[in-house]
Amino acid sequence: MLVVKIGGGAAIGESAYANFAADLAHVTEPVVLVHGGNAEFSALSAALGMPPRMITNDKGRVSRYTDRETIDAMLMAYAGKVNKRLVAKLQQAGVNAVGLSGIDGRIATGRRKPVLRGVEGGKPKVLRDDHAGTIEAVDLSLVTLLLDNGFLPVLTPPALAVEEGVPINVDGDKLALELAIGLGADALLFFSDTPGLLRDKDDEASLIREIDASDPAAALAAAKGRMVVKVEAALGAIQRGVGRVVFADARVEQPLSRAMAGAGTIVQRGPA
Amino acid sequence: MLVVKIGGGAAIGESAYANFAADLAHVTEPVVLVHGGNAEFSALSAALGMPPRMITNDKGRVSRYTDRETIDAMLMAYAGKVNKRLVAKLQQAGVNAVGLSGIDGRIATGRRKPVLRGVEGGKPKVLRDDHAGTIEAVDLSLVTLLLDNGFLPVLTPPALAVEEGVPINVDGDKLALELAIGLGADALLFFSDTPGLLRDKDDEASLIREIDASDPAAALAAAKGRMVVKVEAALGAIQRGVGRVVFADARVEQPLSRAMAGAGTIVQRGPA
Repeated sequence: MLVVKIGGGAAIGESAYANFAADLAHVTEPVVLVHGGNAEFSALSAALGMPPRMITNDKGRVSRYTDRETIDAMLMAYAGKVNKRLVAKLQQAGVNAVGLSGIDGRIATGRRKPVLRGVEGGKPKVLRDDHAGTIEAVDLSLVTLLLDNGFLPVLTPPALAVEEGVPINVDGDKLALELAIGLGADALLFFSDTPGLLRDKDDEASLIREIDASDPAAALAAAKGRMVVKVEAALGAIQRGVGRVVFADARVEQPLSRAMAGAGTIVQRGPA
Repeated sequence: MLVVKIGGGAAIGESAYANFAADLAHVTEPVVLVHGGNAEFSALSAALGMPPRMITNDKGRVSRYTDRETIDAMLMAYAGKVNKRLVAKLQQAGVNAVGLSGIDGRIATGRRKPVLRGVEGGKPKVLRDDHAGTIEAVDLSLVTLLLDNGFLPVLTPPALAVEEGVPINVDGDKLALELAIGLGADALLFFSDTPGLLRDKDDEASLIREIDASDPAAALAAAKGRMVVKVEAALGAIQRGVGRVVFADARVEQPLSRAMAGAGTIVQRGPA
């Protein structure tokens, strides 16, 4: 069982979808795809005259204010355009894909925190009706039913706040992680617009080939910057039963085959 | 088995979705929902500065030119916003809904006719890269799998041109019709922003209570204007095995219960 996350960067469009589709047509083990859509979401928000409003809370954490219109734009970009364009490419390659959001079949549910307090543009703000939240539960019944019947589930945020019946903005990487843990995946692969985890983010040659998950403290100490969150997530997944975590390049031909053959950064217990 | 089509008119929004959801929570027989999204699609197209381009062909048939950007807007409005907002309301009411487009699981496939010839604004035009098409095949495996396992499928255009791996703009009523025929539905119910079929389209009191499908010629002769296409479709569905077709109001509380109890226009063989 593989869980494959395809990032939503601007460099990852229809030709990358076709590369993944061609590759997936030859994979025999069950696969769950998860995708992002950030570049499309940003482009749509900009076209609709809704620039992102970033709020910094008292712990220094920056989050995007997601009002009703913003979560609708997220639904449109992630669950509408990106999801269906990707499914169409998979279908063309003969892969019987089914596109779903976290809302469908209650796959990913959580709660939103409607009041967002923090600082925006140097000024303290209290923003109401925020639709951001965290995944509290993952229901695998629908995903498992589809896998057992030869379909390939293609999942995307948002998730669902059940009691209110509204979508909530959740992190796509977190969705992939929770699915991989719940399904006991052999591998969880994150594809984005870099060759893997880089020692120097501006130098693609500084790729880290492997991280030994059997010494989490050392692995975390060696990480820096934005990499810390990713290494932390990978270590957590392995601790919770995922075989290995791979960070690899979405921009190449046969992206999945390459990553399965050792390209990118591999996080696992012991040497590769 | 019921197939329920909810129209995409401007009067049919979140509160109508909640009404359908509350009603569906009490229905015991299997239901497939199909929805439109035309008002959302138009609003999004307008907001994105893409006014509809209507082309009249040599038979006088008017169609909307659907280029790549237009079909993306359709994906966003139909499969993104409307589909997921409706599913969220169903989930809130305890109905385990799963939102899908015709692309997913190859539910609805067809071919597009990329070259559109006709007259636009009085001038002859040849427009290329059109993404409109017709449904040529319906694959019920995914829908049946979901129904058999207690999920309620919520379907929407577009459909899929498999060979090209692109979405195609198809009619939502046609999608509902093909599903109802394929599933051998007991009833196919069309909900929109009118009480049913009206003798005088500007007078809601002119509701036609029933149409006898055992005399199709007489039924068609009595229809006029935009009603002809609807009556024709209903008669065709009944001829192909659907028990009855109902046209009813989406704007009321308990819309489904009312229609099942006889509200709206009923098309069937013999008296109701």
